Amino acid sequence: MSFRFQVRVVTVVAFIWLASLPAQADLITEKRSYSIQNFATSGGELIPELRLGYETYGRLNADKTNAILITHYFSGNSHAAGKYRAEDAKPGYWDALIGPGKAIDTERYFVVAADTPVNLGAYDANVITTGPASVNPATGKIWGVTFPLLEVGDFVAAQKALMDQLGITKLHAIAGASGGAIQAMQWAADYPGFAGRYLLVIGPGTRLDARAVAELETWMQPILLDPAWKNGAYAHSSTPLQGLVLSLRNITLAALDTPWLEQEFGRQWSDAQKPPLQSLVNNFKVNDGLLAMARARAEQVDANHLLYMARAYQQFDVGDKVAAMRGQFLFVPAKGDRIFEPALSTQAAAQLIQRGMKAQVLEIDGGMGHLDGIFYITQVETQIKRFVDQGL
Amino acid sequence: MSFRFQVRVVTVVAFIWLASLPAQADLITEKRSYSIQNFATSGGELIPELRLGYETYGRLNADKTNAILITHYFSGNSHAAGKYRAEDAKPGYWDALIGPGKAIDTERYFVVAADTPVNLGAYDANVITTGPASVNPATGKIWGVTFPLLEVGDFVAAQKALMDQLGITKLHAIAGASGGAIQAMQWAADYPGFAGRYLLVIGPGTRLDARAVAELETWMQPILLDPAWKNGAYAHSSTPLQGLVLSLRNITLAALDTPWLEQEFGRQWSDAQKPPLQSLVNNFKVNDGLLAMARARAEQVDANHLLYMARAYQQFDVGDKVAAMRGQFLFVPAKGDRIFEPALSTQAAAQLIQRGMKAQVLEIDGGMGHLDGIFYITQVETQIKRFVDQGL
Repeated sequence: MSFRFQVRVVTVVAFIWLASLPAQADLITEKRSYSIQNFATSGGELIPELRLGYETYGRLNADKTNAILITHYFSGNSHAAGKYRAEDAKPGYWDALIGPGKAIDTERYFVVAADTPVNLGAYDANVITTGPASVNPATGKIWGVTFPLLEVGDFVAAQKALMDQLGITKLHAIAGASGGAIQAMQWAADYPGFAGRYLLVIGPGTRLDARAVAELETWMQPILLDPAWKNGAYAHSSTPLQGLVLSLRNITLAALDTPWLEQEFGRQWSDAQKPPLQSLVNNFKVNDGLLAMARARAEQVDANHLLYMARAYQQFDVGDKVAAMRGQFLFVPAKGDRIFEPALSTQAAAQLIQRGMKAQVLEIDGGMGHLDGIFYITQVETQIKRFVDQGL
Repeated sequence: MSFRFQVRVVTVVAFIWLASLPAQADLITEKRSYSIQNFATSGGELIPELRLGYETYGRLNADKTNAILITHYFSGNSHAAGKYRAEDAKPGYWDALIGPGKAIDTERYFVVAADTPVNLGAYDANVITTGPASVNPATGKIWGVTFPLLEVGDFVAAQKALMDQLGITKLHAIAGASGGAIQAMQWAADYPGFAGRYLLVIGPGTRLDARAVAELETWMQPILLDPAWKNGAYAHSSTPLQGLVLSLRNITLAALDTPWLEQEFGRQWSDAQKPPLQSLVNNFKVNDGLLAMARARAEQVDANHLLYMARAYQQFDVGDKVAAMRGQFLFVPAKGDRIFEPALSTQAAAQLIQRGMKAQVLEIDGGMGHLDGIFYITQVETQIKRFVDQGL
């Protein structure tokens, strides 16, 4: 029992970080990087250098009209598809969707996936990002919370700079899940007409409402409460681990729905010999399991980066820019999503349609809730392929 | 703006603690107490004395057949209706439901509301409870976490002792919201036939599923993370306040749904001059508002009591005792309830009906989510009155 539990927890962790279904073809990719000098933030600050990672799959055509941008979710990164080496255990998180002959067909499209600034995985060897954990070239010291706070608009501006560097003046489409859907919608607001099609999976529509702003705060608060956070001025060697683990645990719980939690953990105790009635230390499988998942993720994550990422998303609101948007929009919410419920996609689609654009909503249901957008996206692969290739 | 915000937050706090609509009649009540000597817990421990509070409304009839027990919610207490003094600002939390001529008519019924052991409000002058914050008579010191952990079955056994002391051998009905619905269902499991009717408002049905067990852990974790908790061995004067406030903030957020949060706070900043893009300290109205609500509650709450209460509910599972239950069951879930969604009530009703009992589900919707069970209960007052008076 205990061994099986261990194995399952590890499986889930791998799911969340390296996620995907078994690769059908060997799409081999590599992490690249690009730099932006003197990046001016939405808040009016100047960052001397933003160095960021990206991956590409497929080939850019001669007239540079076949590019699709993939924007990643809150705790994700630019490893959206393929493997770095054939022997890698898992491919990128949306490998089921992106690849030769797949819904986003790399035989047809040049797919670019980009790491955001303040990416959570500051200590992940496969993430290239700039944020509070980076060195401020002006001082030679870690920025910490002296790094400027960012908005989603800054993430998108950094991606626009990448497009400029690649010579791409028009995107065939932008596709993203969760935070990635937020970035895609920000693109629609900030660069209307730059992309023709938007695939918005498990997103919040055009703004974060009061409850979602508070939910993100639930993710931030454990770090702020941890004395080791030291107002953001900690060294990596003395990271606020307890707060960070609890934060990641809260994120993981929010991203999962009851059917999956019931199936994976149920209400059993972790150790049949240690009933929760005997000690506060004894716990249920679901609680120890969520903490184990969080602990396994924590090592690669910087606590300040998590705070910055949450704060960026809290500010997302392009509700008043819908009228200026251009293009076609396919929303894919998940039925049991406890972070961004399907009604939010329906409302956003209605707003767009009302302003003369084409929009459609396709709901998926895999029993995981929010994470259906990663693990059950192939439920609508045919419709996504049609949308990407032909539009609505 | 700032003044208006202050007033609204205070209103909400008063709502949650002293809740109700304006009293139509002056039902005057007083807090009483009762004691149980050598209380044997479910875990096999012995508590030398349990001293607990209760209130009554209306009069017990000669053959003692008109009693209705009211069991309280997680952070509630036995002040379910009426006022202690005519000049009190607010009556008990379900005053809209309980009183002369109301759905639970105190002209007809003798209503008893009981404080649970380990009640959160250890420092609330209107709560009488025994738990970790009480003095262990054997040592003359505060119990702390040496106090035995309890189950909901222990809460119910303590209420059964009160019934014994009042000479009540049969209850006309038991009614409770949230944790109170859990206690009522535990009554149905532990003392089948003792009560004839069960009113189960915003409850989880017959068990807490894996997600709800994890949600309760989200409420506990900030306290466990606070170094001032000191493994439960803190003095009241150095209470783990930060963790406790965050815990109460998480509870408050879980109990509220989007429409109310949007209306009350929206996504405005607390201070128009301090945008959240400028500093992590600057925040949104919804986050500062939830923290203010939590801070106002924290003074009367003991952190260990909160942990004990959560642990008691985590263990709730009477799923295998449904066949032995007797009586009629009216479930009142709330549409936007994010803690116990309506489907849980529907499932429990189906289980009871399948075993030959009468059960019905009436959904309410006031836009507050879980708290609709307190603030919008009069949406079904006619049906509740019929249920209490005539049954299904």
